[in-house]
Amino acid sequence: MPTNTQILLDSRPSDAATLSNFKLVTQETPALQDGQVLVRHHFLSLDPYMRGRMNDAKSYTAPQALGEVMGGGTVGEVLESRSPLFTPGDKVVGLGGWQTYSVVNAATPGALRKVDTTHVPLSYYLGAVGMPGVTAWYGLVHILEAQAGQTLVVSASTGAVGSAFAALAKTRACRVVGIAGGPAKCDYATTELGFDACIDYKQHTDAASLSSALKEVCPDGVDGYFENVGGMVLDAVMLRMNDFGRIAVCGMIAGYDGKPLPMNYPALILRSRLKIQGFIVTEHLDVWPQALQELGELVATGRLRPRESVAQGLAAAPQAFLGLLKGQNFGKQIVKLM
Amino acid sequence: MPTNTQILLDSRPSDAATLSNFKLVTQETPALQDGQVLVRHHFLSLDPYMRGRMNDAKSYTAPQALGEVMGGGTVGEVLESRSPLFTPGDKVVGLGGWQTYSVVNAATPGALRKVDTTHVPLSYYLGAVGMPGVTAWYGLVHILEAQAGQTLVVSASTGAVGSAFAALAKTRACRVVGIAGGPAKCDYATTELGFDACIDYKQHTDAASLSSALKEVCPDGVDGYFENVGGMVLDAVMLRMNDFGRIAVCGMIAGYDGKPLPMNYPALILRSRLKIQGFIVTEHLDVWPQALQELGELVATGRLRPRESVAQGLAAAPQAFLGLLKGQNFGKQIVKLM
Repeated sequence: MPTNTQILLDSRPSDAATLSNFKLVTQETPALQDGQVLVRHHFLSLDPYMRGRMNDAKSYTAPQALGEVMGGGTVGEVLESRSPLFTPGDKVVGLGGWQTYSVVNAATPGALRKVDTTHVPLSYYLGAVGMPGVTAWYGLVHILEAQAGQTLVVSASTGAVGSAFAALAKTRACRVVGIAGGPAKCDYATTELGFDACIDYKQHTDAASLSSALKEVCPDGVDGYFENVGGMVLDAVMLRMNDFGRIAVCGMIAGYDGKPLPMNYPALILRSRLKIQGFIVTEHLDVWPQALQELGELVATGRLRPRESVAQGLAAAPQAFLGLLKGQNFGKQIVKLM
Repeated sequence: MPTNTQILLDSRPSDAATLSNFKLVTQETPALQDGQVLVRHHFLSLDPYMRGRMNDAKSYTAPQALGEVMGGGTVGEVLESRSPLFTPGDKVVGLGGWQTYSVVNAATPGALRKVDTTHVPLSYYLGAVGMPGVTAWYGLVHILEAQAGQTLVVSASTGAVGSAFAALAKTRACRVVGIAGGPAKCDYATTELGFDACIDYKQHTDAASLSSALKEVCPDGVDGYFENVGGMVLDAVMLRMNDFGRIAVCGMIAGYDGKPLPMNYPALILRSRLKIQGFIVTEHLDVWPQALQELGELVATGRLRPRESVAQGLAAAPQAFLGLLKGQNFGKQIVKLM
């Protein structure tokens, strides 16, 4: 069996996460038992939710255990199979974690899914046609309940979720405005991702200023906001929400790696009769087939052309992950493992 | 025609409202035209929403105009009628404002409604069987979607909304926990209003302490929270919300009369997958008949015995209103006008 390279959670961050929280090890891959398959990982997904799991605190997922392989989504190829469900050569998406190989009980529901790479590149099953894409779909369809002609805003707009959100929103004839960090991301949002406008939050030092900039590009106000970041950005968008506006809370990355950030104008919830709802896409598995089908079609027809930030080799994963938390990635952050 | 005593909004508060913002005047009541009725007000309702209208800012109702009679709910008796819809002697509820008489166009939808005082005292149509009662009903039924066995929390729990909320929640076999200011209100909540427990927020100086006290009386967590106050109380309850909990935002009185108060833990919206929704009961007129019928029955059968704070005479209204904003009332705050 091949030698497996792994990254373990070695210690918990006391404040911001650092490289010293991770540890790279190697070990032999165990022999397959009946019903198991050996998967060689081609790509590892890096996602903001992983930061929450590094803390030993109540969160929506159980904390990552110390000394264990960091969890995470992976795509790869079946090398060996002792299961009738998979054949060597199958391209698969699963939850293999931060390692180069995994041994999977093939019959466990949700553990491994065969995918078709004819029209969709394998790595996209970690992004646009995977968990982040479905996240955008669920928030747009089930929480924002987007209608043609409405103005929608999404933060972290060039990331995996934001770029899928834009494509899905344009399909529904919405005006879609992004918020991103830096002129390069904003240019990319409008020229490549279909955003009608994109605001560089780094040009603003307070919510009032950012809110004024939003007003210019949302002359009819904001009907729905897909929240990925929190903090000043949330305050700024709330100031622009129309009556009966909806906010889907998918993430608050601005507060993940330090002190929690307050919402400064909660009285707007009442004044504008807002609905604000948090959600976790893995709790809504019933919508995945429908969402993945639409996302796959958008990619196959070129209406969703997501960008990827690709780190090279497993050893680069911790640094790439810390960069993701600071917004240094540009598009979906993945790690190429072979 | 009788002489009408009125209280006008004379100036807008720059920070906290003061007596100098109000002005008492008298003037003759105009002669009735066809379709109009003259109403003598017996009671005026004082409600927290009036504070928002004193500012010249975006709110869910238009600002109160300077130099005009302060708006507000009233109950009274028809003295003269030039409308076929009302007869002298009719007991009516309307929006007569801070004055002793009003001339009303009887056919205007929502302007005046005849009420039956056989089983429900007239003043209760300003509280338990009026706007505050329907507010509690709407939040409980349509936003919290209360189910038997759930734990619900309401702040300002001995006020007009809170006391109706408790009776409605107990009818639905919920555990209902109040938050109020001072031991007298808390005793009253549990001994008279049917609360299973009530916490005195004045015994706590921070959200963590109040949250610990809540944990003791909500051993199964909190499924639904009816928010009237905001600030520290909101933070404390959010820390105790169960996954998929709901928060109905009816008011944030703690921030009405000064600086807006932040929500300090918005990341809990995501972590606990909360739904937070603001509402204004006058935008849901379709539910009023159903809600008023249930509330009337609760009062008539003694299952809802609301308390009233009664100020004597129109001139006492401003001071009573300022007291209401500080929680100095005990139960529904009204002003007896005759």
